[in-house]
Amino acid sequence: MKNILLVPELRELLAENNPQNLREFCESSHPADIAEFLSALEPDEIGRVLSCADPRIRVAIFPYFDIDVQLGLAERMRRAELVELVSNMSSDERVDFIKKLPEEEIQLLMPGIAQAEREDIRKLASHPEGTAGAVMSSDYATLSAGLTVQEAIEKLRLEAPDKETIYYAYVIDDQRKLIGIVSLKDLILARPNQRMADIMHPEPIYARVDEDQEEVARKIAKYDLIAIPVINGGGGLVGIVTHDDAMDILRVEQTEDLEKFMGLTGAVREEDYLSVPIFTHYRRRVIWLATLAMLELISGTILHVYEHVLTSVFILALYMPMLAGSGGNSGSQSATVVVRALALQQVRSGDVLRVLWRELRVGLLLSMTLMLVSTGRIILLGRETALLGGFSLSHIGAVVATALGLQVVSSTLFGSLLPLIAAKVKLDPAVVASPLLASMVDITGLLIYFNTARLMLGV
Amino acid sequence: MKNILLVPELRELLAENNPQNLREFCESSHPADIAEFLSALEPDEIGRVLSCADPRIRVAIFPYFDIDVQLGLAERMRRAELVELVSNMSSDERVDFIKKLPEEEIQLLMPGIAQAEREDIRKLASHPEGTAGAVMSSDYATLSAGLTVQEAIEKLRLEAPDKETIYYAYVIDDQRKLIGIVSLKDLILARPNQRMADIMHPEPIYARVDEDQEEVARKIAKYDLIAIPVINGGGGLVGIVTHDDAMDILRVEQTEDLEKFMGLTGAVREEDYLSVPIFTHYRRRVIWLATLAMLELISGTILHVYEHVLTSVFILALYMPMLAGSGGNSGSQSATVVVRALALQQVRSGDVLRVLWRELRVGLLLSMTLMLVSTGRIILLGRETALLGGFSLSHIGAVVATALGLQVVSSTLFGSLLPLIAAKVKLDPAVVASPLLASMVDITGLLIYFNTARLMLGV
Repeated sequence: MKNILLVPELRELLAENNPQNLREFCESSHPADIAEFLSALEPDEIGRVLSCADPRIRVAIFPYFDIDVQLGLAERMRRAELVELVSNMSSDERVDFIKKLPEEEIQLLMPGIAQAEREDIRKLASHPEGTAGAVMSSDYATLSAGLTVQEAIEKLRLEAPDKETIYYAYVIDDQRKLIGIVSLKDLILARPNQRMADIMHPEPIYARVDEDQEEVARKIAKYDLIAIPVINGGGGLVGIVTHDDAMDILRVEQTEDLEKFMGLTGAVREEDYLSVPIFTHYRRRVIWLATLAMLELISGTILHVYEHVLTSVFILALYMPMLAGSGGNSGSQSATVVVRALALQQVRSGDVLRVLWRELRVGLLLSMTLMLVSTGRIILLGRETALLGGFSLSHIGAVVATALGLQVVSSTLFGSLLPLIAAKVKLDPAVVASPLLASMVDITGLLIYFNTARLMLGV
Repeated sequence: MKNILLVPELRELLAENNPQNLREFCESSHPADIAEFLSALEPDEIGRVLSCADPRIRVAIFPYFDIDVQLGLAERMRRAELVELVSNMSSDERVDFIKKLPEEEIQLLMPGIAQAEREDIRKLASHPEGTAGAVMSSDYATLSAGLTVQEAIEKLRLEAPDKETIYYAYVIDDQRKLIGIVSLKDLILARPNQRMADIMHPEPIYARVDEDQEEVARKIAKYDLIAIPVINGGGGLVGIVTHDDAMDILRVEQTEDLEKFMGLTGAVREEDYLSVPIFTHYRRRVIWLATLAMLELISGTILHVYEHVLTSVFILALYMPMLAGSGGNSGSQSATVVVRALALQQVRSGDVLRVLWRELRVGLLLSMTLMLVSTGRIILLGRETALLGGFSLSHIGAVVATALGLQVVSSTLFGSLLPLIAAKVKLDPAVVASPLLASMVDITGLLIYFNTARLMLGV
């Protein structure tokens, strides 16, 4: 994201070459805003501004840049500067950044970083993408059960500057097993000499390190948490995921669902529309597009097979687009509401019969409405009897309305069933891509149409 | 959401009729889980379980029920019970609940509620749906600038049980104007005799009371806040919106965007798929479906106008579904990526030319691929010369490929342009419903196709 409004002012500041002014600029707004303003400049210029900033401010601004800006800035930094920056970043932002660096850069960088932090980076980087482990932070505060409230507050006070949050502190035993959680609010409310064992909440809500990041974010949302502790297979505390990470995860996953639902392949987590190469955009779209085009060729073959129906009663051709479109649209609509209900956890895969029964009734209402629309249109066409191929207008109207009704009801049911099946077999319901659904009901629609015509008109 | 696994156990507990056990059950898990377990029971049964719970636990569980369960429970409560429940709910949950009650119920309930809380409900309920004012809470802690750290902590300690968060406290002047913010972390880190005026962050990030709730949620996400203060026109502090509310807002808004994008009308905020009446589902879908069906009738009219082209070269009809489908799909794909890029703020409406230039190149690559697919298919059809109406296979192949190429490029551009225009005129980009787009490019596709055929074949 860029904000170009400030570019002339920023360039003027740079031209003045007054480090004090540049330093003050970096502190004039929230780091997220400063990063946004600076993103409109060239990497060299951004580097010059940042080099004037207080190191504490620089490390606060840096993670808010898009990853490609971060990499561009890193390239231009002296090694010592980069080591300092990396050493001071929060643990989860640091590992996200280092994972993106070229291998040789990492080899040069790592020896400069302190042993404990190198170990921390190695541990955090070892978790597969998409799991709690890959998004967690190791900057959390721990307490032992025997501490008094006063001692605990004193410990948090000392550690606070290095921790992502001290609003929750995690109570662990000698083996680092998580045994409880204490909020800073609990500490403030308790008497100074109470022990953690007495005031902590035992059996806190937690995430496993290999748990899907979306699951973890949902837990944070469901239980209204500021952070969730992450434990390994042995029950040991290994990290936390904070509410702001959860929000980012849910936002990216949900817009990803939109793309999946519209038939775009491949994840583009964290990548920017404008910086992704054209060919990547092409690759993400072409597979579906070509597959669907071939699928539509089946529709062509059906037209070929039923050519005699079309040529003898040409008026039927005029309703083909409406029939195909209405099937695709009603199917996509019902798939959409079911995908949404699944996403908001209002419905689960076991509710198949209840959902189908609802959709059947909605589909019947919709098909009756569309039958009225099509009948109205046919009556308006009344005088053009040349198109009718010898059949009466009411005959043709009955064929179109019947086929349309069958088509809308069947695609509504089909559209609601597919996401539920996907959820049942543990697939993301959004993989039931709407364009695929539309192409499939295009084909069933033509078959319904021509067979209805054959049966009712005998052609 | 319901969890039916526990139903037999819960019914057994109820049959035993041991209040102590029911009370313990209500404390055995997070209130969100208890509400989920209980939702599988009938309202009468839920009421019986809750009546055994500790009042403090009851008020914690209640807001996690779906609104229709809440209303069902309220109906069955004695007035005194309901007054007690409402009096103890957090200010934002309380007003959400009361807004849904029938008018006569509110009239009966309000006199039982204390004056201060009645006033609070009245104020919060006065803000239009969808604004910061309608989702904010009035349970926040304030401090005056002259307080020392020690005094401030003492004040927060006293007020903590009634506040949604004490992790941020808001510094206000005599006119309740917001002049700064102090986090509990700041207080813990500061010396006991420092004053708020010295340690507070001046010019905090805030939301206006009439600001769109989605904007407010985005601010919370952008600046990684636990809560954001809400101020009125005069700069006075009137409430806060917390991170968990922001998460709910973003989740609902984003899935709403999916529905809008797929052509479903009307907001169903907070309503449950399974509890919304069938007729409401029908109403949300029928307008678009009928509109699109009429639009598809235009395609029918075009077929009518170009009937002579189709009847003289019938092979062209076989490629119609592919042409229409590919246009709709490529347009929807490019609309989807642009809608997503706008939602993630990677692109803004001013980037029109950059986006169009990218999409033009992607569209050209896609159209070349599809031209290959269609040419391959026509060569396979080679022997069926009866369909060709006197033209050579290469002639027909050239017409189909040319029309397909033009169609894919134009729909790609069209699909990316529409969301940008919507964003420019401050509409939600998702209103560029994908089915509408598909129907529109169906029409342009047929026009491109028949005119290409006329020009290239002279029919």
